[in-house]
Amino acid sequence: MSEPVLRKATAAGHWDGVAVLRYKQEGEAPFQDVTRQVLFEDAGGAQWRYFEIAAGGHTTLERHVHTHAVMVLRGHGRCLVGDRIYELGEHDLVCVPPLTWHQFRAHERGALGFLCLVNRERDRPQLPTIEQMAQLRADPVLAAFIRA
Amino acid sequence: MSEPVLRKATAAGHWDGVAVLRYKQEGEAPFQDVTRQVLFEDAGGAQWRYFEIAAGGHTTLERHVHTHAVMVLRGHGRCLVGDRIYELGEHDLVCVPPLTWHQFRAHERGALGFLCLVNRERDRPQLPTIEQMAQLRADPVLAAFIRA
Repeated sequence: MSEPVLRKATAAGHWDGVAVLRYKQEGEAPFQDVTRQVLFEDAGGAQWRYFEIAAGGHTTLERHVHTHAVMVLRGHGRCLVGDRIYELGEHDLVCVPPLTWHQFRAHERGALGFLCLVNRERDRPQLPTIEQMAQLRADPVLAAFIRA
Repeated sequence: MSEPVLRKATAAGHWDGVAVLRYKQEGEAPFQDVTRQVLFEDAGGAQWRYFEIAAGGHTTLERHVHTHAVMVLRGHGRCLVGDRIYELGEHDLVCVPPLTWHQFRAHERGALGFLCLVNRERDRPQLPTIEQMAQLRADPVLAAFIRA
């Protein structure tokens, strides 16, 4: 472990010595108002990240073989996992299974910050094809939720 | 992943479908007023746990080869890591390096709850020998902190 023993939380969603990074490279995939921080490069073999979505923002709609183990650290929002929408509040736990479409959205009036554990070695996310997006949007509840 | 997609936080330090377990078997090692919960058996290859120490309680003073990646989820307290004492508040991050003595204590007037990521396969904790404890207690700051 290369991290110092203690890194203080300096403000909501900020820590001493932890850089606030782009969520993804611009133009790589659609998203809005999301930051990424790596809290531990190696947390018991996993990479431990913190993502924060500003009010009204959203992550990319995507899927991949690796799983996500998520805990909401602050704020409120919703997520699509598979074919359902879930309401999210502080400290709620979310599992995203392999190859399952998912997207996180912050509340319109406040940020959503969440911890997300992943394998250090993992596959690249897949974006939906036009056909897959049409399938998802065939459900009016999902159609109303999805941002792309 | 065998967990359901969503497990709601039902109260501070409690989740739907997450059992509150003993920290350790009685008599195995000295500790006081600590509970353990496994939030994810496999979080990106790591085991993701939540520990809560009641007011005035403490974990075992121990060390092991595997590392701890820790985030305080709620409350306040202190920890000994190596030969120093650190003050802990909400969302602070703590790294416990390999083979480093460590002990967590809650504040006298409130609980300390923290997330702790470890390797799923890991070595057993070592307790200090009488000689090692004497060495630690040679420092009056550590002597005043340690509970055993």
